[in-house]
Amino acid sequence: MASHPIVELTSASSWAMIEDKFSPYAKETLAKLVKFMLDEVFPAIRVAHAQLPTDYDARWKTIIPVVADLKARAKQLGLWNLFLSKVHYPKFGVPLTNLEYAVMAEVLGRGGSLASEVVNCSAPDTGNMEVLARYGSPEQQQKWLVPLLNGEIRSSFAMTERFVSSSDATNIRTSIRQEGNEIVINGHKWWISGAGDPRCAIHLVLGKSDPNSSDKYRQQSIVLVPANAPGVKVIRPMKVFGYDDAPEGHCEIIYDNVRVPLSNLVLGWGKGFEIIQGRLGPGRIHHCMRSIGCAQMALDLMIQRVTDPSRKTFGKYLYEHGTVIADIARSRAEIEGARLLVLSAAQQIDKYQAKGALKEIGIAKFVVPSMALQVVDRAIQSFGAEGVSQDQMLAATWAGLRTLRLADGPDAVHIQQIGQRELKRAPEITKRNTEIKKKEKALFEKYGIKAHL
Amino acid sequence: MASHPIVELTSASSWAMIEDKFSPYAKETLAKLVKFMLDEVFPAIRVAHAQLPTDYDARWKTIIPVVADLKARAKQLGLWNLFLSKVHYPKFGVPLTNLEYAVMAEVLGRGGSLASEVVNCSAPDTGNMEVLARYGSPEQQQKWLVPLLNGEIRSSFAMTERFVSSSDATNIRTSIRQEGNEIVINGHKWWISGAGDPRCAIHLVLGKSDPNSSDKYRQQSIVLVPANAPGVKVIRPMKVFGYDDAPEGHCEIIYDNVRVPLSNLVLGWGKGFEIIQGRLGPGRIHHCMRSIGCAQMALDLMIQRVTDPSRKTFGKYLYEHGTVIADIARSRAEIEGARLLVLSAAQQIDKYQAKGALKEIGIAKFVVPSMALQVVDRAIQSFGAEGVSQDQMLAATWAGLRTLRLADGPDAVHIQQIGQRELKRAPEITKRNTEIKKKEKALFEKYGIKAHL
Amino acid sequence: MASHPIVELTSASSWAMIEDKFSPYAKETLAKLVKFMLDEVFPAIRVAHAQLPTDYDARWKTIIPVVADLKARAKQLGLWNLFLSKVHYPKFGVPLTNLEYAVMAEVLGRGGSLASEVVNCSAPDTGNMEVLARYGSPEQQQKWLVPLLNGEIRSSFAMTERFVSSSDATNIRTSIRQEGNEIVINGHKWWISGAGDPRCAIHLVLGKSDPNSSDKYRQQSIVLVPANAPGVKVIRPMKVFGYDDAPEGHCEIIYDNVRVPLSNLVLGWGKGFEIIQGRLGPGRIHHCMRSIGCAQMALDLMIQRVTDPSRKTFGKYLYEHGTVIADIARSRAEIEGARLLVLSAAQQIDKYQAKGALKEIGIAKFVVPSMALQVVDRAIQSFGAEGVSQDQMLAATWAGLRTLRLADGPDAVHIQQIGQRELKRAPEITKRNTEIKKKEKALFEKYGIKAHL
Amino acid sequence: MASHPIVELTSASSWAMIEDKFSPYAKETLAKLVKFMLDEVFPAIRVAHAQLPTDYDARWKTIIPVVADLKARAKQLGLWNLFLSKVHYPKFGVPLTNLEYAVMAEVLGRGGSLASEVVNCSAPDTGNMEVLARYGSPEQQQKWLVPLLNGEIRSSFAMTERFVSSSDATNIRTSIRQEGNEIVINGHKWWISGAGDPRCAIHLVLGKSDPNSSDKYRQQSIVLVPANAPGVKVIRPMKVFGYDDAPEGHCEIIYDNVRVPLSNLVLGWGKGFEIIQGRLGPGRIHHCMRSIGCAQMALDLMIQRVTDPSRKTFGKYLYEHGTVIADIARSRAEIEGARLLVLSAAQQIDKYQAKGALKEIGIAKFVVPSMALQVVDRAIQSFGAEGVSQDQMLAATWAGLRTLRLADGPDAVHIQQIGQRELKRAPEITKRNTEIKKKEKALFEKYGIKAHL
Repeated sequence: MASHPIVELTSASSWAMIEDKFSPYAKETLAKLVKFMLDEVFPAIRVAHAQLPTDYDARWKTIIPVVADLKARAKQLGLWNLFLSKVHYPKFGVPLTNLEYAVMAEVLGRGGSLASEVVNCSAPDTGNMEVLARYGSPEQQQKWLVPLLNGEIRSSFAMTERFVSSSDATNIRTSIRQEGNEIVINGHKWWISGAGDPRCAIHLVLGKSDPNSSDKYRQQSIVLVPANAPGVKVIRPMKVFGYDDAPEGHCEIIYDNVRVPLSNLVLGWGKGFEIIQGRLGPGRIHHCMRSIGCAQMALDLMIQRVTDPSRKTFGKYLYEHGTVIADIARSRAEIEGARLLVLSAAQQIDKYQAKGALKEIGIAKFVVPSMALQVVDRAIQSFGAEGVSQDQMLAATWAGLRTLRLADGPDAVHIQQIGQRELKRAPEITKRNTEIKKKEKALFEKYGIKAHL
Repeated sequence: MASHPIVELTSASSWAMIEDKFSPYAKETLAKLVKFMLDEVFPAIRVAHAQLPTDYDARWKTIIPVVADLKARAKQLGLWNLFLSKVHYPKFGVPLTNLEYAVMAEVLGRGGSLASEVVNCSAPDTGNMEVLARYGSPEQQQKWLVPLLNGEIRSSFAMTERFVSSSDATNIRTSIRQEGNEIVINGHKWWISGAGDPRCAIHLVLGKSDPNSSDKYRQQSIVLVPANAPGVKVIRPMKVFGYDDAPEGHCEIIYDNVRVPLSNLVLGWGKGFEIIQGRLGPGRIHHCMRSIGCAQMALDLMIQRVTDPSRKTFGKYLYEHGTVIADIARSRAEIEGARLLVLSAAQQIDKYQAKGALKEIGIAKFVVPSMALQVVDRAIQSFGAEGVSQDQMLAATWAGLRTLRLADGPDAVHIQQIGQRELKRAPEITKRNTEIKKKEKALFEKYGIKAHL
Repeated sequence: MASHPIVELTSASSWAMIEDKFSPYAKETLAKLVKFMLDEVFPAIRVAHAQLPTDYDARWKTIIPVVADLKARAKQLGLWNLFLSKVHYPKFGVPLTNLEYAVMAEVLGRGGSLASEVVNCSAPDTGNMEVLARYGSPEQQQKWLVPLLNGEIRSSFAMTERFVSSSDATNIRTSIRQEGNEIVINGHKWWISGAGDPRCAIHLVLGKSDPNSSDKYRQQSIVLVPANAPGVKVIRPMKVFGYDDAPEGHCEIIYDNVRVPLSNLVLGWGKGFEIIQGRLGPGRIHHCMRSIGCAQMALDLMIQRVTDPSRKTFGKYLYEHGTVIADIARSRAEIEGARLLVLSAAQQIDKYQAKGALKEIGIAKFVVPSMALQVVDRAIQSFGAEGVSQDQMLAATWAGLRTLRLADGPDAVHIQQIGQRELKRAPEITKRNTEIKKKEKALFEKYGIKAHL
Repeated sequence: MASHPIVELTSASSWAMIEDKFSPYAKETLAKLVKFMLDEVFPAIRVAHAQLPTDYDARWKTIIPVVADLKARAKQLGLWNLFLSKVHYPKFGVPLTNLEYAVMAEVLGRGGSLASEVVNCSAPDTGNMEVLARYGSPEQQQKWLVPLLNGEIRSSFAMTERFVSSSDATNIRTSIRQEGNEIVINGHKWWISGAGDPRCAIHLVLGKSDPNSSDKYRQQSIVLVPANAPGVKVIRPMKVFGYDDAPEGHCEIIYDNVRVPLSNLVLGWGKGFEIIQGRLGPGRIHHCMRSIGCAQMALDLMIQRVTDPSRKTFGKYLYEHGTVIADIARSRAEIEGARLLVLSAAQQIDKYQAKGALKEIGIAKFVVPSMALQVVDRAIQSFGAEGVSQDQMLAATWAGLRTLRLADGPDAVHIQQIGQRELKRAPEITKRNTEIKKKEKALFEKYGIKAHL
């Protein structure tokens, strides 16, 4: 058992549960991916960081050499677009289930944003490719999906707005209106990931096309906006705990009377809400599995640190102090439980589509980021001041994970939905327990007991 | 999907992960078990409680009528000895895997101690039957295992000692020594579950037969002691919080020069430690799954309570107040994660024996009871004062769960073991990361960058 | 510093904060109380327990000898009715502030219910005496308050009702109506503490006298009902985690056409809500400080246990294992913080009456029981199975503390009220921050900077 | 009561506990400080930030204009050097107790690092001034303390070393040795706060002067090293999460054969450990109270946000969703409890010196940062993505607080010390309880009961 890559990298207990669900192709791909990561990608993380200029402006105009080299290499190895579930195969992507890719996403998560990018599995490109594969017109697919699948361009998804509580998508104010053969877009967005990147060629912009519709889930549409269209103004990068995440960034953007042809409408008028719903299920699983990879990587670093003889204090290894061993045990248990939750959600998607897996996805969405934050935080603590610094990936990883408690709906929204969904079981439970009570009463009579009910 | 019993009772997301691992026999048995529980067993819980006298002495001499009736019924239905893993089949038990029985154990857990007892799956009998099936001589099996399997007698496992920290089994002081053809036992035990029951016929007693052995895991032996042997003195029942758990109880017992024939030695001299190790793996899984059943039952009761229109306060349903919905969502998520951990451990046992599943068992052992306590505690809170009273099963359930953080090794022991096991990964992690650092250095050179290492 | 009783029993850091607020009388009384507890009361706790019969009926008809003896002794020492704040002095009680009594209540809390009872400071008598002292007519005071103050009788407060969510007092259904010169009471109560006691002579019963009043806080009245009045039917004791708390108990009671003279009305028609509000402030502080005493006692026991050489496992003291030292440190910190919160609330009451201390009381009410439960739970864990048994006070203490998260309003009610109270600060905060923003804008202009606002 | 500044800014319940301990001067100074902060300092925070260049190099060479202006203003108002406890008055500082300054430090904490700096109360200057005031020679005081007190220069404290676990000060490797009339320093430090600042003129450097001393707490000495001495090489700023904290920074420094005159030795050879011990007590209180100010500020922002009508989602205010009100209530309670702990520690220092307050200081040290992190994290969550960005102070505040769980000893060290200190109470507890058991036994005999002991 010990020789399998999933075990090697994760010491995962889950393998016994899922092994029989993996195809030979998936097993082989996983092994190849692990080897590529260990041999070529993980060693390149800090190199890529060093190749990013410190100069404020230059940071946003750079194509990092080692990234470009690794992308070519990954494509050559067939480790490419692994995220695209096999429902699209063979037209697009590879024949992997969500469950199979989930395990690979954990491996990618160990390598920060670089690892996902070099195999062309980075958000927000992944979700955007999924949208175009599922809902794009042949023309749209030719023009934007193909170069995205080839890794020649990158993309953004422009939903969140400044001055607006965008976790309620019906609050969106960006205006999308038809004028003759054109669509005119006006709006003020922010936190648009990837929009700072010189390779970013296309924005999928969500706005209101029919603000007066009585059905508030039909008011929105999505339009394809070329990044270089006149009126697209990238204002500034937003920072996350001090990080600017250049060159991609998370940008504030004003769409000022931007005009695109009518054919850039995706799927149809009023289909915006439907599209973003469909976009989210697998994407959330990817995020969750990458987060678990972050947690696992942090735990490994912590174990390395606390057993390092050069780090002894007061004559003892770090692991001999205080609650370190208990912290490690709890981290291990939390990772195992969370991983099983996500794998179970992936399996549920494979069996019943995203719509039949809403509960499992929702639980994973609010459980995993908090879990991973906690594990990474414990690792930070074991590294002392070095843990919060640029010399370890831990602090940057923590900051990235922290945004996942806010992105795609804050924790509270998902917790509320899961709670409400549970409340829907009330009639069934009440009926079952009422039936039991009735039989209980009959039993009391049968045995001639006066109960104090 | 909704019609399957596992879903009906648990709203379980795990089914998608394990369905293909269930045999037709297991599916059929599970369905039958659920029906039996709903129709006959759950309605009998409070009846059994009412049939137990309030009189202090009579409580310990009673065979509860409804329990006897249900046992006959279960045997007739073939719902009997389900716990005995199929490694013993067809000699003993039924052809179920640990994974398959685990799901059934959750169903049993919803029905308190009664449900397990009526299908002859109660601790400590289950562990004792496992021991006798695995290590007993043909004579021992004939004399004790057969009536236990038939549910004609019950049994105890006498390990824990008063005045001694028994979580370290090498501390045991009970003396077991050979005198001619007899074995003489002297010792002071407590917390011996089941020993108060009039049906309890046999004790498996752990003691030191060779206290001076240099191998401290070979000092112990286990002997079969008939409950009515001269010198077996049951002193008093220990209470758990305010519960005496009559008629089984958890008793303080003095073994005062008790003599049994040499043939009552189990497996051989010095085999005590080996036996208790083998006894614990599946037993812990059973406890864990029953605990998850407790949690699930409590959550269901909570949902029923907070949606009950007669329980409105300040004009609102209880679920509209405070953090109730969030508490329900978190309980749901915690149950799902914990259940997957236990199922995964059961699957690991089926694949690699208990010895190959120590990590998974250990994690389940310390995660599940705390999780279940928390979920039950939230349910108690939703019931107000009624929640802590005899009118709901919740408080008694909580008290029973609380002992699981102490029994079979307190949490701290398992946490420590899991932590230590993780630390053993240190050399592998360090080697892997050192390898990566080496390649990283080569990459820095290849790209001509001076790193600040 | 080390010689002061508060330090001796609590190792309290708070003394530096409050010493200058203690009168010489209070210091002397505190010292005397500590000595009495250590020398006479704490040694009697298990004796009192042993003097309670095991026979089910006899438990409720017993006056425990050692309790009676200690009460006589306490009265003789002048350690009597310490709870009655000095606003009633010299007419009733003793000249102690709430802050001064709070420290004494912590000492009492270390001794379970016995300690409070022997100095005539037991709930619900304390609250009832406070009500009669504040709102009783001279005749009512003569007939009921004087014997209560003398410890000759005991009393109950009948508010909570079965089948009703009584945490919303407007849900109360018990009917109180005038018929000529009499008041007729009909209702179904439960959890009426003390009503099982043979010494309980008087019930203060809350019911609806004017259910149609437009002011729903004027619908209730409180009536004095002699325990032996015809129609007062004590149905059964409610149990708390298996404990019946005999002889006082928490009883289910039916008031079936009970008739009392009109002069038994307290304060006036429709004054019920006003009375219960006034009753709760100091009472909550008493409960909180006793809870802190429980926590402190549990921590002390834990420290004794983990340093006990006879409890070593695997060759180490218990404190050398796992997270024990960290658990002790956290318990210490949590007790210190909670104690300061309660002392601060007591001081606030002394300065601004209970009405001016609602925030402080509310915070203490929801913080302290959870804190104490956690500390006691850790201590239980350190004692192994003995911790949940009748051989240590810990389990019974835990069960009693658990009810405090439900009694006098469940946690959620207090948390909600504190949260709402904080929200009332919103206008002030918003105004302040708006003012700062305005000045900030002026500063940006003054320094000639274009801000990205 | 509502008009007092402490209440206005903190809605503090603690005021009733401490008001009588404030001198008229302290009350007046506090009022003046609050006014200055509200009117002039808080509005300048973002201005100062905007005046810091984005250019990477320029950031470290800037004296921010608004800071310089505010410092002049503060000096003029007499709001200057408030931190220096009145034990140094009138020679240095102002006549304030630690308790009085603690309340002011909370106010400063609301204003980030700017607020402390403009009243010359910034770490590490404060600790360094304390060292020089207490241990400096008249010549050292004249040359370095006076300009520091005047705010003309700034300073660093160089203790932490790269490649060394510096939380154990005996691990320090920097060499300090005498050569004739000079001292030669060689070492590799990092995380030296303030060393990036162009105004930083002096480093207090800790190193080993007698590495072979048998007393490992006498091996260290502290030397004054001018920032511009030859051989002082500032390598790079360390980042905290993504923040560089320019212009002060936390720098990596190599001392390469740095030579200073013998008179730059502080206090004497081998006195290094003694000095750092004395330096830490009040400094920890300052950090804690500023952290409480951070938490209070964050809670205020959260309240403003969740009551903002423009932030409604799904038709409701944010505070009407999920657990927001409960989160606010808990934050309020946690802040109150933590504040009382720190004030109590400050009072303990005032009464018994830092040495007599080690327990109180240690508890505050590990309780407060975690508490504040949690409160700030909840506030971040309420702001959505804006909460993690540069547009609110919250994320930067969180990152700063996170370092406090590591600086001046990581949490684990303090938790361990408090736990060990508690264990020292074991003999006293055991003796007390043994005494009680003895009396209990006598009572059992007196009443003629056979106990089951």
